[in-house]
Amino acid sequence: ISAIDIDSLSADMTALKESLNDVFLCLMSIVILSMQVGFALLEAGSVPAKNVTSILLRNVLDSFVGATMYYLFGYALSFGQPDNRFCGAGYWALSGLPTNRYSHFLFNAMFAATAASIVSGAVADRSTFSAYTMYTALISGFVYPIVSHWVWSPRGWLAATNVTIVGVDAPVQLRFMDFAGSGVVHLLGGSASFVAAVILRPRIGRFPANSPTSEPTSTAATTSGVIPGHSVPLVATGGFVLFCGFLAFNGGSHASVSSVGDGRVLALAMLNTLLSGSASGLTVLAVSKIRTGRWSLLSTVNAGLSGMVSICASCNSVEPWAALATGVVAGVAYLACSNLVVRLRVDDPVEAVSVHFSGGLVGLLLVALFHSKRGILANPGLLSALNFAWQLVGLIVIIAWSTGFSLAVFGCLQLAGWYRVSELDEGVGLDKAEHGEAAYPYERLRETGELLAAKFDDCNEF
Amino acid sequence: ISAIDIDSLSADMTALKESLNDVFLCLMSIVILSMQVGFALLEAGSVPAKNVTSILLRNVLDSFVGATMYYLFGYALSFGQPDNRFCGAGYWALSGLPTNRYSHFLFNAMFAATAASIVSGAVADRSTFSAYTMYTALISGFVYPIVSHWVWSPRGWLAATNVTIVGVDAPVQLRFMDFAGSGVVHLLGGSASFVAAVILRPRIGRFPANSPTSEPTSTAATTSGVIPGHSVPLVATGGFVLFCGFLAFNGGSHASVSSVGDGRVLALAMLNTLLSGSASGLTVLAVSKIRTGRWSLLSTVNAGLSGMVSICASCNSVEPWAALATGVVAGVAYLACSNLVVRLRVDDPVEAVSVHFSGGLVGLLLVALFHSKRGILANPGLLSALNFAWQLVGLIVIIAWSTGFSLAVFGCLQLAGWYRVSELDEGVGLDKAEHGEAAYPYERLRETGELLAAKFDDCNEF
Amino acid sequence: ISAIDIDSLSADMTALKESLNDVFLCLMSIVILSMQVGFALLEAGSVPAKNVTSILLRNVLDSFVGATMYYLFGYALSFGQPDNRFCGAGYWALSGLPTNRYSHFLFNAMFAATAASIVSGAVADRSTFSAYTMYTALISGFVYPIVSHWVWSPRGWLAATNVTIVGVDAPVQLRFMDFAGSGVVHLLGGSASFVAAVILRPRIGRFPANSPTSEPTSTAATTSGVIPGHSVPLVATGGFVLFCGFLAFNGGSHASVSSVGDGRVLALAMLNTLLSGSASGLTVLAVSKIRTGRWSLLSTVNAGLSGMVSICASCNSVEPWAALATGVVAGVAYLACSNLVVRLRVDDPVEAVSVHFSGGLVGLLLVALFHSKRGILANPGLLSALNFAWQLVGLIVIIAWSTGFSLAVFGCLQLAGWYRVSELDEGVGLDKAEHGEAAYPYERLRETGELLAAKFDDCNEF
Repeated sequence: ISAIDIDSLSADMTALKESLNDVFLCLMSIVILSMQVGFALLEAGSVPAKNVTSILLRNVLDSFVGATMYYLFGYALSFGQPDNRFCGAGYWALSGLPTNRYSHFLFNAMFAATAASIVSGAVADRSTFSAYTMYTALISGFVYPIVSHWVWSPRGWLAATNVTIVGVDAPVQLRFMDFAGSGVVHLLGGSASFVAAVILRPRIGRFPANSPTSEPTSTAATTSGVIPGHSVPLVATGGFVLFCGFLAFNGGSHASVSSVGDGRVLALAMLNTLLSGSASGLTVLAVSKIRTGRWSLLSTVNAGLSGMVSICASCNSVEPWAALATGVVAGVAYLACSNLVVRLRVDDPVEAVSVHFSGGLVGLLLVALFHSKRGILANPGLLSALNFAWQLVGLIVIIAWSTGFSLAVFGCLQLAGWYRVSELDEGVGLDKAEHGEAAYPYERLRETGELLAAKFDDCNEF
Repeated sequence: ISAIDIDSLSADMTALKESLNDVFLCLMSIVILSMQVGFALLEAGSVPAKNVTSILLRNVLDSFVGATMYYLFGYALSFGQPDNRFCGAGYWALSGLPTNRYSHFLFNAMFAATAASIVSGAVADRSTFSAYTMYTALISGFVYPIVSHWVWSPRGWLAATNVTIVGVDAPVQLRFMDFAGSGVVHLLGGSASFVAAVILRPRIGRFPANSPTSEPTSTAATTSGVIPGHSVPLVATGGFVLFCGFLAFNGGSHASVSSVGDGRVLALAMLNTLLSGSASGLTVLAVSKIRTGRWSLLSTVNAGLSGMVSICASCNSVEPWAALATGVVAGVAYLACSNLVVRLRVDDPVEAVSVHFSGGLVGLLLVALFHSKRGILANPGLLSALNFAWQLVGLIVIIAWSTGFSLAVFGCLQLAGWYRVSELDEGVGLDKAEHGEAAYPYERLRETGELLAAKFDDCNEF
Repeated sequence: ISAIDIDSLSADMTALKESLNDVFLCLMSIVILSMQVGFALLEAGSVPAKNVTSILLRNVLDSFVGATMYYLFGYALSFGQPDNRFCGAGYWALSGLPTNRYSHFLFNAMFAATAASIVSGAVADRSTFSAYTMYTALISGFVYPIVSHWVWSPRGWLAATNVTIVGVDAPVQLRFMDFAGSGVVHLLGGSASFVAAVILRPRIGRFPANSPTSEPTSTAATTSGVIPGHSVPLVATGGFVLFCGFLAFNGGSHASVSSVGDGRVLALAMLNTLLSGSASGLTVLAVSKIRTGRWSLLSTVNAGLSGMVSICASCNSVEPWAALATGVVAGVAYLACSNLVVRLRVDDPVEAVSVHFSGGLVGLLLVALFHSKRGILANPGLLSALNFAWQLVGLIVIIAWSTGFSLAVFGCLQLAGWYRVSELDEGVGLDKAEHGEAAYPYERLRETGELLAAKFDDCNEF
């Protein structure tokens, strides 16, 4: 027995731990990448058949452009060294990046792609492909990374700011609480979606002139109402994939599996995510049934997602009952937001604003209430009040940043006439106009003989 | 060098192991949650287009209601402390649950949701949404948890019962062998499905009055026969997702990755699952070809699932060749059961009974034969005969429990007139009648111009 | 403190490491199995609706037959003991296999199934089901395993061959560089696809007699041109699933997570995979836009896959910028290959040759250029020139082996008249002719009342 044995064993242990943390982030990255399938299917099912190819390709680009832009610029702005309190400024195109940060890059690249994806649904069916591509590049390479620096980089200004309070000796450290991105990802994406949809104006026929603004349209109106989507199974499949993905999105944010209790935090984050989504979905299912007499799948799926969005901020730090409560609030907020958006005559084909903006908002606020250590309930007093105020500061700044940027980009695109397709193209559908690839070439179906025979029967019958 | 170094290293190791076991269960939980997508798609593809939204929402609820009910009651009944031999009675709504059991809860919640999902297919197309929701809540919060206590809780009566045999000194410990739920999950769900379908009676038009009962309907009749499903791709996709999920379902049941040989058991469980599913699928493919002259996808997929169900009980404890053999038997049993169900004129739109009941039954019996240590082949004699008898006891009790409960619940629902929708609603389809959300709004497709043009051509041609 | 403590701790550590490596391979196996869903959907979407059931079942069989054949023969030929430089010859049906190699079997079985899957698309719509099944059994049980022995078994002749160079004292060890199968899996599958499609001849109507051969058909012609596929959403979903799967395919090939730096290599492999796929997809998107004025989803998805194929060989050993460069080259090669295949009037309905053959070729060549230690750029000189030559040797032999085998098998099948279905069956579609299961039974859709009403309107309108 010698010190060398122990040292070698200890070094082994250190290497194993480091490796496993990398492996964990890599595994979570695969699952989060699969969320892109979820977004793609959810959105594809929510739009008319004539715009399906277009929205699918936009989602593919969210991954491809997102990964490339985050590689070139995004990671440097998020976590580059050297950095300041506003952004990072190193590791451009990963040059000089220590290899032990590869997994960190991979994981965060997935988050950037997710942030970019959110907007694609809000501008569906009428925006030009080139405008969307430009936008996706900017959000994943620039807008999102800077906010993620603020909150998730140790030197970010929202991550840690010391304030001196009169009458308190030691300075108080304010920390914006957003574990997995209620604000950084979803509030940001939801705000941008709202601005993008407002500037783009509604699709032709979405709000008929004689429809009364005062009458609230039902929740599901945006997906199954005036301009219905073309496939509920695609929507539901996409929703399911996202439910699974959110467990990795939220759990993966813990980023470590090798220290004492890591596994417990991971499990807590995941079960809270499941409970919050369930509570939100069930709340909206019940309310919809009461209000409309129908059991709505589309509202339930979107509400489930909104519940999972709302728990991002707090999934690692609240008790399971609080996750349930957060979900219930998120469900109600989703309904309210969904109705408000329709009343404002803003056309958001996939309810991106209702899911991500309202869910994110609820999450950022409720974490200050329910946090099991620093929350108002657990620890009422000056400190938790300050925490709450800091949450407000953070969410306002995130909304302002996202809104401001979107106003500038989409405003310019609009003024230049590059943002929206022509009326003709909108009527024909983006798939034919911009892509030359119809999602379902029915001519071919006819040739199978099945549809042909069916039609022959029909025509004769009448 | 000091004892402290070793102690600290040893503590590090303990923490790492505990954390990794949690992480493993969390990862498996994500994959098992994805099985809900599999069930949803398999079932959605197997029903007519007019009932697709309905069955998708039921599957969403299996997750949402299942998670909530298992959180509130199920886990307490399964694994709560204090407990007795029949059920647990603590940790209601997870209160008082040690945080190191969060991952255990999460994993088992997924199993509860899976057990609940099985029935949704058997009652498709004609049961009311509210009746199904009530049922799903009861099975995931009450029926399944209690059986899982019997078998998987250390104090469960099936898990370990000592009997004294005349002429043998030491008492013999009987242990019900069901590693991953051939009985606890699938036999239970399959039994409930049978009762549910019998009480609900067949869909209108499923068994035309003049069709001879003596003539066996082909295996695929339930899915592609008199009332065909609407989309084979959805069925196949769902089947594939379930194949992948079963590897996690069965492998994850080992629940540990940190002890000597854990990885080997995991790999054995997974490869046995793959082999058993393959053998069952190929057996049925070949038999179907011989009997009908056709290569049937639908039978092959269902048989593959049945093979994987059958190996749940034994995947960690039999040699790969025995997994293949188990699969072959499961395939034959699936065919026999499928024919029997049709002969009995029980309408099971997705063959839930044939897949889960017969697969589960085969699994519980064959583990007593093939178990590499305690099986009849490896160790013939009194002990293995007793083991086999104990398997019989367990499976009979599980069937009785599930059947009895289902008779009570569905019988009451039926008597109250709440179980089945009206003939009118059944004709119109549940999507319009109960949900107000058609799965495929064809009106919209027409507007794309493609289908319109196609039809114009057709009408003129004839 | 005693030596025993350390020994026990050290044994613990060894067991943990071994277990975790097994667990890692098992997890990656689940994800790679999910690639079968990806292939199935990509191919199903790319063919007419009348052949969808057929291609789905072929993909199910790739898993079932592949797993069974690899269990019976394949693993023995790949990694059996004893072995020689050409193949292994032990562990038939896993007999005698040490249990610590179960995970290795499982992981490699998934690779065998993947190799078998590649060909299914190239022979879609016109080959008999029985011929395909026979072929799939041979490739996963025999053709692929032997090549994988050459490259990935320590004694394989391509894995390590010593040559003596005049003027150099020590013998030089040549090692074929193919980390995750650009050659072993994809070049092999792509070569077989080409031969299979050539012998099978084009589908009826694919190359109309009067179409000029000199005019290059657009990239997407094979999928959206003369005989379009029936569903772009299925293609895109399949592509997305494969993108996710490739991260596991390439990352999992490292096969270890417990040694120093393992996690870093894993993360590098995954991020390189993502970057190469992105670069290839974006390159082809841009070129297609310039050439045709359209943003093509189908080309972008296939190009993304080709980029990921090309980085298989080098994902663990090149810098991220080199992965981007590899992707750009793979994109260009994909376009060139796709055009060449059409010019040659070879009918490859899903572009299997363009994705796998050209991607694999690019990967095997560029690893010799970009390898961060042994590449020509990093270390120009005799050694890297020899490495490059050895890559050429390997790729030529793999092409020859795959081509030769395919010529023999498909040639015999063709001569025997078993390879291609009758013209009548091709017209009717394989789903009805061989399977008796139409993918979309439209008769049923009519009965829902929706389509019926729509048609009634149409017929009256005109």
